[in-house]
Amino acid sequence: MRLMLLNPNTTEAMTADMERQANRYARAGTEIEGFTAKFGAESVECAYEEEFAIMSFLQTIRERADAFDGVILSCFGDPGLYACRELSPVPVVGIAEASMLMACTVAHKWSIVTVIPRVKPMAEHLVRFHGLEQRCASIRTTPLSVLDCEREPERAVREMVKASQAAVAEDGAEAILLGCGGMGPLDDEIAKAVDVPVIDGIVCAVKLLEGLHDYGLKTSRHAAFMRPEPKDLAGVPGLGGVSA
Amino acid sequence: MRLMLLNPNTTEAMTADMERQANRYARAGTEIEGFTAKFGAESVECAYEEEFAIMSFLQTIRERADAFDGVILSCFGDPGLYACRELSPVPVVGIAEASMLMACTVAHKWSIVTVIPRVKPMAEHLVRFHGLEQRCASIRTTPLSVLDCEREPERAVREMVKASQAAVAEDGAEAILLGCGGMGPLDDEIAKAVDVPVIDGIVCAVKLLEGLHDYGLKTSRHAAFMRPEPKDLAGVPGLGGVSA
Amino acid sequence: MRLMLLNPNTTEAMTADMERQANRYARAGTEIEGFTAKFGAESVECAYEEEFAIMSFLQTIRERADAFDGVILSCFGDPGLYACRELSPVPVVGIAEASMLMACTVAHKWSIVTVIPRVKPMAEHLVRFHGLEQRCASIRTTPLSVLDCEREPERAVREMVKASQAAVAEDGAEAILLGCGGMGPLDDEIAKAVDVPVIDGIVCAVKLLEGLHDYGLKTSRHAAFMRPEPKDLAGVPGLGGVSA
Amino acid sequence: MRLMLLNPNTTEAMTADMERQANRYARAGTEIEGFTAKFGAESVECAYEEEFAIMSFLQTIRERADAFDGVILSCFGDPGLYACRELSPVPVVGIAEASMLMACTVAHKWSIVTVIPRVKPMAEHLVRFHGLEQRCASIRTTPLSVLDCEREPERAVREMVKASQAAVAEDGAEAILLGCGGMGPLDDEIAKAVDVPVIDGIVCAVKLLEGLHDYGLKTSRHAAFMRPEPKDLAGVPGLGGVSA
Amino acid sequence: MRLMLLNPNTTEAMTADMERQANRYARAGTEIEGFTAKFGAESVECAYEEEFAIMSFLQTIRERADAFDGVILSCFGDPGLYACRELSPVPVVGIAEASMLMACTVAHKWSIVTVIPRVKPMAEHLVRFHGLEQRCASIRTTPLSVLDCEREPERAVREMVKASQAAVAEDGAEAILLGCGGMGPLDDEIAKAVDVPVIDGIVCAVKLLEGLHDYGLKTSRHAAFMRPEPKDLAGVPGLGGVSA
Amino acid sequence: MRLMLLNPNTTEAMTADMERQANRYARAGTEIEGFTAKFGAESVECAYEEEFAIMSFLQTIRERADAFDGVILSCFGDPGLYACRELSPVPVVGIAEASMLMACTVAHKWSIVTVIPRVKPMAEHLVRFHGLEQRCASIRTTPLSVLDCEREPERAVREMVKASQAAVAEDGAEAILLGCGGMGPLDDEIAKAVDVPVIDGIVCAVKLLEGLHDYGLKTSRHAAFMRPEPKDLAGVPGLGGVSA
Repeated sequence: MRLMLLNPNTTEAMTADMERQANRYARAGTEIEGFTAKFGAESVECAYEEEFAIMSFLQTIRERADAFDGVILSCFGDPGLYACRELSPVPVVGIAEASMLMACTVAHKWSIVTVIPRVKPMAEHLVRFHGLEQRCASIRTTPLSVLDCEREPERAVREMVKASQAAVAEDGAEAILLGCGGMGPLDDEIAKAVDVPVIDGIVCAVKLLEGLHDYGLKTSRHAAFMRPEPKDLAGVPGLGGVSA
Repeated sequence: MRLMLLNPNTTEAMTADMERQANRYARAGTEIEGFTAKFGAESVECAYEEEFAIMSFLQTIRERADAFDGVILSCFGDPGLYACRELSPVPVVGIAEASMLMACTVAHKWSIVTVIPRVKPMAEHLVRFHGLEQRCASIRTTPLSVLDCEREPERAVREMVKASQAAVAEDGAEAILLGCGGMGPLDDEIAKAVDVPVIDGIVCAVKLLEGLHDYGLKTSRHAAFMRPEPKDLAGVPGLGGVSA
Repeated sequence: MRLMLLNPNTTEAMTADMERQANRYARAGTEIEGFTAKFGAESVECAYEEEFAIMSFLQTIRERADAFDGVILSCFGDPGLYACRELSPVPVVGIAEASMLMACTVAHKWSIVTVIPRVKPMAEHLVRFHGLEQRCASIRTTPLSVLDCEREPERAVREMVKASQAAVAEDGAEAILLGCGGMGPLDDEIAKAVDVPVIDGIVCAVKLLEGLHDYGLKTSRHAAFMRPEPKDLAGVPGLGGVSA
Repeated sequence: MRLMLLNPNTTEAMTADMERQANRYARAGTEIEGFTAKFGAESVECAYEEEFAIMSFLQTIRERADAFDGVILSCFGDPGLYACRELSPVPVVGIAEASMLMACTVAHKWSIVTVIPRVKPMAEHLVRFHGLEQRCASIRTTPLSVLDCEREPERAVREMVKASQAAVAEDGAEAILLGCGGMGPLDDEIAKAVDVPVIDGIVCAVKLLEGLHDYGLKTSRHAAFMRPEPKDLAGVPGLGGVSA
Repeated sequence: MRLMLLNPNTTEAMTADMERQANRYARAGTEIEGFTAKFGAESVECAYEEEFAIMSFLQTIRERADAFDGVILSCFGDPGLYACRELSPVPVVGIAEASMLMACTVAHKWSIVTVIPRVKPMAEHLVRFHGLEQRCASIRTTPLSVLDCEREPERAVREMVKASQAAVAEDGAEAILLGCGGMGPLDDEIAKAVDVPVIDGIVCAVKLLEGLHDYGLKTSRHAAFMRPEPKDLAGVPGLGGVSA
Repeated sequence: MRLMLLNPNTTEAMTADMERQANRYARAGTEIEGFTAKFGAESVECAYEEEFAIMSFLQTIRERADAFDGVILSCFGDPGLYACRELSPVPVVGIAEASMLMACTVAHKWSIVTVIPRVKPMAEHLVRFHGLEQRCASIRTTPLSVLDCEREPERAVREMVKASQAAVAEDGAEAILLGCGGMGPLDDEIAKAVDVPVIDGIVCAVKLLEGLHDYGLKTSRHAAFMRPEPKDLAGVPGLGGVSA
């Protein structure tokens, strides 16, 4: 099977890292192709920047998803998840959602440990969006920017370990979800110092999409994810034409 | 004071209607200017189409909001509300949010009566996003498309009355929120046949923004609505340059 | 338009202060008349004392509300709000409710900062009563009594600033709601030292009632706020006669 | 032990009936004295009328509770419960609360079957006030006024049976709570036709107060139910003097 | 009336203590017989060990409950409560449930203070199972094992007092629920040092069952607690034969 | 990898069917071995019967799980899930949990369609236990017993289709979860007549366990699922010895 992995930002090195992370745990027979965002920011750290990522996701899905069996939104905010599901001919999984769902099978409660404090309200909304408040022990932030995870991996591990240990000791976290698409490559190093499972959403998304594929499950078209009606989308460069 | 009213779709007649509706109840001294979406769909009825509206909102806010005292997102889904708040130098109010908050002062529980059934899950998410589940008696849909409200006002009134009466009689609705930016002009006709307040979000947004202006309240910049960091937004036509 | 402002306690100086605060932000054309409680306590700080305030509210509404366009319950507990709505011929807004609703347009989460610790359970109930738990970051108390706000404004500002800063730094508050009807006059001083909007419920109530008036919205009479049936109210001094 | 039973209305025949109902299931050694409201309405069916009942409750508690071991608020709305707890030297139990708590030991979910539709929002608030939403299957109303229960017992039984059977068949009710203080005497007749426990709050309140007495439990004075501070309560006839 | 008290563990000394505690507050005419678990662990401190307690409960209920008027599950986890209710011909009350319900009449919020930290997630589930999250201020653990309560009562009191005081001071607890069936005998000593009611579930269960008995209320058989169908229960030693 | 599939009942034909269903969608390299309950009922339809299934689960896990990489509790009630997790050296997934989590990736809301009405309260508790109330559109029952699914597959399909169609049309279900371990083999037939994904928990459990295995995730031992302490488990036939 073939999976499309969508990096929400324009940083190509992150796309490569995400692709590598996805392949580490993919099974034989699963091919993964990463796509760097064509427009938007070099890293996504607020709602405004998410919107550009979404445009990029939609454009790539529109143009290329027919050749794939599943789509991974590799941004921990799951931006545009429901819009992408409407548009995509194949299942779409966000990495936040994937890590939360998968974590529920090994932990009664998990914590999200993520980047700079400003993303905390977004992460709170996200957990609530997915209806998983009861399983979330806490959301902890670090002083790390998204690009710090890429550029200063050792410091990033140190900060992540510190926040993760606090989540376990003080919040009752039984698993740690890595709250950024760029943290996957650090999972082993963090796990060495943290006494609970450390879970990367990219891997979880791969595993869930493999599972859906094996079982033949497709996105429901009944209510939330009906396909868009055919409509003119005037003046949208690269996204123009009819909407569906 | 000056208010920017953002129509999420490309249908200019709707912009004119929305502007007229806003002006009907604006007080002397409040000037309202409507903006038609520069790209996207002629009407917004799914999450995919919302994304184009958001791009349009962001572009207009970026280019023009400095000259205004407040922004109205005239789409009942409040699409991109938090992204717009991050970006905008002045307060931003969505019409769904506005009608829900205002309704709470005259009704213990209210119902949303809206367009075609496919928007129901979006409306449910919306109520939950704003944390107002306890005040929402029900969400009822009609067979009306967004454009039907514009093009077939008499039929639209009939369908709205029917669904509103059912909400009052069966769901305990004490007020009816008009669940589409294009329904405002129908409020009086619907109100004639429904025994509870019928509330249009555009008017409520105008009133709330007037109130915020009088009191001098601005969008908080502490957590959820911090301004975006300055970053390159590569390749976004009409939205390029730095992100903030 | 004319607004009736009901002070829940018997302290006339507070009525004057509340009236002044309401007028500071009222628009031209809005007249506000304050009413001191005819019986009850000099300050309201527990459920027992609230009950006397309610009696006073009801008596004044019954005798005088016909000459007004709206009623402000100027007590942060919103005591007797639903009873007053049943009775009153014109819209009634409580100052707690007003500040919570208005705050939702500029802050994702807000905190209530209020008087002595014993009112905390009441404030928790209040937030829950209005169904706004999701938007409330925290409720913080101070060592201030209600009358301290009046009598020792400098100390009151100091205590309020300290608790407000803690709410912002530790609880994620994006706006501060002044949790007592007597704190309004302190809003500017507190706002100078706190980096988020500081919101007084009296002003918000004025703004909401002006908005309702402009739009012509009245209290729904369908379910929660039906008018009382005509009944003998035996032996109630000043409130006797038929109940509606 | 001695229990004070407070009828919220001025109808003496109802006081007598409530006293009789309480005595039917009281154990030997429990003496119950009923008190008719000194002012207010002949029946309590809205928030406005509840306020007079509360005044009456407070006056009687203030003057007489010292001679008792517990207080029963015999009104299904539990009006003024927290104010009464603050004031009373002995435990206070509302009959709604009592029936809900007791029902939880024999039924996973229970329904409230009560009088005229206008009380439904009050009952919803009540369940939520006590934090028992998860255990409430439904609230069903009947065409019965409070006084109908007294004056037309046969019709009242018929209506109650009809609504109760619907609650069991359609809502999953496993027990029926009689939603009015005047329905107690009808419990056996209703129970004959309904296949689940039929529970009267007056009896439950007696049983809970007997239990508290045996165990020596008193109202906590730590947070919600601290005693009122001594204050002048100016001008309150029959309730004047200091507040505590 | 006769009550069956089921100790979940095999420690006979605890059965004797529990029986004594139940008798301390039972009224004349209530006979209580304790039963030690026939199999399982000497103390129950995890979900695995609870399962054996449940088997023991079911066996004893099956063989002996016909001779009793009520059953007390004397384990703070209320293990197997719904299975026991299905099977038992007479009402069944768990001591956690009993203390939570009874506490609601004297405290707006209560805290559970219990044994070693590993039981905390179980207690959280328990509160949620009963739908009482809104009334629970906190769950605090101590370093005490279940058997420590029995074997080192003085140390147990010290630890309980420390955690209880913290719950009152920091969490807003207005009553303390003793979170282990073996803590009942310590209630007076703990209460001396804690300024809110200290509540033991065994006593509460006795009081609730006495109340149900007086009122003649039985377990509802409509939905959750229907009796098991007659079925072969192959190979269950001591529990074999038909299931009902 | 090797998976242990635990049938909760003593009906061997169901074990064979479950094993076959699991193998249909397992990937090459996944071996699945089914285990029939050694004691208990021929079908599990109430909380009482679940308890025997749990004993059987625990015994089999204790004796055999070392030779496996994962455990499937093939009973839609997920009975004893947390006890099994504590005991098992390898991950344990219940089929209800598995289907709910997996469904969240293809449907915003799903419904459970299950056997006889008496299991409805159990299913409600189950959804709440897993904290997934927000994603559950409804729980619908049929007149089918567990064994009917096995013995009368055509009738079972008819009843399931009818209830599933109602869930889609009336409750907003976007996917149907088969609410019984014996319904898996019917999935294709039901899916033919229902316009949304039809999801069997056994398959989902296989897929989730394969995913956990690929990623190397193990049950967290930090809080909820700590291993039991070594203790004597007196007198438990086949489960005796130390508890861990």
